Amino acid sequence: MENGIITIAHGGGGTRTQQLINDIIRKHLSNPILDQLDDSASLEVPETALAFTTDSYVVNPLFFPGGDIGILAVCGTVNDLVMQGAEPKYLSLGLILEEGFAVADLERIIQSTAAILKKTDVTLATGDTKVVERGKGNGVFINTSGIGIRNPAVNVHVSNARAGDVIIVTGTVGDHGIAVMSQREGLQFQTSLRSDVAPLDGLILPLVREIPSLHVLRDPTRGGVAAALCDIAGASQVGITIREKAVPVKKEVVGACNLLGFDPLHVANEGKAIVVCAQQDTDRVLALLHTHTFGKDAAVIGSVVSAHPGTVIEETAIGGERIVEMTTGEDLPRIC
Amino acid sequence: MENGIITIAHGGGGTRTQQLINDIIRKHLSNPILDQLDDSASLEVPETALAFTTDSYVVNPLFFPGGDIGILAVCGTVNDLVMQGAEPKYLSLGLILEEGFAVADLERIIQSTAAILKKTDVTLATGDTKVVERGKGNGVFINTSGIGIRNPAVNVHVSNARAGDVIIVTGTVGDHGIAVMSQREGLQFQTSLRSDVAPLDGLILPLVREIPSLHVLRDPTRGGVAAALCDIAGASQVGITIREKAVPVKKEVVGACNLLGFDPLHVANEGKAIVVCAQQDTDRVLALLHTHTFGKDAAVIGSVVSAHPGTVIEETAIGGERIVEMTTGEDLPRIC
Repeated sequence: MENGIITIAHGGGGTRTQQLINDIIRKHLSNPILDQLDDSASLEVPETALAFTTDSYVVNPLFFPGGDIGILAVCGTVNDLVMQGAEPKYLSLGLILEEGFAVADLERIIQSTAAILKKTDVTLATGDTKVVERGKGNGVFINTSGIGIRNPAVNVHVSNARAGDVIIVTGTVGDHGIAVMSQREGLQFQTSLRSDVAPLDGLILPLVREIPSLHVLRDPTRGGVAAALCDIAGASQVGITIREKAVPVKKEVVGACNLLGFDPLHVANEGKAIVVCAQQDTDRVLALLHTHTFGKDAAVIGSVVSAHPGTVIEETAIGGERIVEMTTGEDLPRIC
Repeated sequence: MENGIITIAHGGGGTRTQQLINDIIRKHLSNPILDQLDDSASLEVPETALAFTTDSYVVNPLFFPGGDIGILAVCGTVNDLVMQGAEPKYLSLGLILEEGFAVADLERIIQSTAAILKKTDVTLATGDTKVVERGKGNGVFINTSGIGIRNPAVNVHVSNARAGDVIIVTGTVGDHGIAVMSQREGLQFQTSLRSDVAPLDGLILPLVREIPSLHVLRDPTRGGVAAALCDIAGASQVGITIREKAVPVKKEVVGACNLLGFDPLHVANEGKAIVVCAQQDTDRVLALLHTHTFGKDAAVIGSVVSAHPGTVIEETAIGGERIVEMTTGEDLPRIC
């Protein structure tokens, strides 16, 4: 690659594009389906009940403590499938590169994309690479779309929460958003806080196989736990009450939130799930979650109530009550 | 929408994001599957043999004679599925918006996306919207991924061309690239040249049902007919010979290519296919193509030979010969 940077020609569909795809992308991501190199990939799926999802990733900075945009793009889309109880099978990878981006940085991202794919059972099936002029992008944007196989026994849906249900979060809240923000703001924390970005198939798929009667699964990404709970309360037309003291938050995240003026409930997570289940399933759900590294801090944070439908209320640590609302969206941009 | 422009908050995953999705996107694109509004869409596919494709669209300008980025994003991905003989079923739509982009322009794009979707049998199943800061994008980038149902009787592949086969192009060459370039360069042509952007399901799917023995289907997008033919010659390890006089090119495209210094064979098409078939199928293929508006100018442009494997040779209008090569990619950036 001349001068080690991405040029407009790399996106032109000619020999330079082929060179980029072969030397950087296929070098790390090659597999028999991707190697078909046709306009579209031929797949065989084992079932006809599928889940389909898409997400674009525009995180800034591209590299952050605990991950990078490539890891995020795989995990985010895998997790969107998993949150439907679906088994992720195939992924697409669409790259929008900015002229002048360092090829070495691209290769680093492709390498970590390849490494995280190996930790899942997902096959990269098809891809696309475009290049935009300097000042029209941000190094790299990534879109991943994913196809998963639904489990017909599972009927999780954002509208399925019922009064009496229990709200569980699978681990500490706000790690991803604060890790990204700390990098962006040049903050140094005493201990090195890392993003929680992780594929949740290993944590959640055994759970839904064992307890298919779960009511809701939701990953609290953009908008954080607050947005996820507001979505559930709204779609299910139920009230939700959580206890501030019960929400697991790392002390570094509490500290950074105090410093930056954020509520941890609004901060994005990329390796956590909210599980809503019937009261009688609580112990089994927690026990199963606790067996997995990504679920060791799982905790009940509240419950579903018939009062105040559509509204999420938090009992604060000092004994008060406050309404938990979605942010308008200004506060934590470009977190995923 | 305050001030009629996209703000960072529209991408924050909070109330502003919801407002944008409801007021602009769902307003035009709503359907029962998209309205599930879950992290991923639940689909039922009729078969387990699928095609899967992804493409990001970064065309500049966003609006061009004959289309816009939304129409392009639907047609491009539909056509990538169709080029495998697959029936397009489900599409995803990932938007990366730039802060400051006019909401009215976004709505215009969403409206034309909706209109072109109605001309196909494709269902928009899932979507995602992100916002990047001013100067980090280009108004809007779109990724569409698509799932299609393969036809088990069809075995088209870029590596299936055989000596003796005939090369057909379904219509005039270079219309899309020149329409976009003319807009960008502020050129005025005597007649108004328009992009050929179109979904090819209606043209190609009846053809593969009728004549499933076709050898290769390829849409000559980025890199034009030259790149498509070089791909076929390389992957099939055959020679290809085309006759310059036989290639249908509109006179406005010839004129613009002369002016701008382009070879029409290198210019992108978004509503054309290259069909490679056995000699004995030629008449039936042409007859079927000619019944459809998008195939009325279909013509044999050359043949597959055993000589010069991997190389495409053009017999020029003045009786000479030249090797047709891929561009390096510098010449026609941001055409799709």
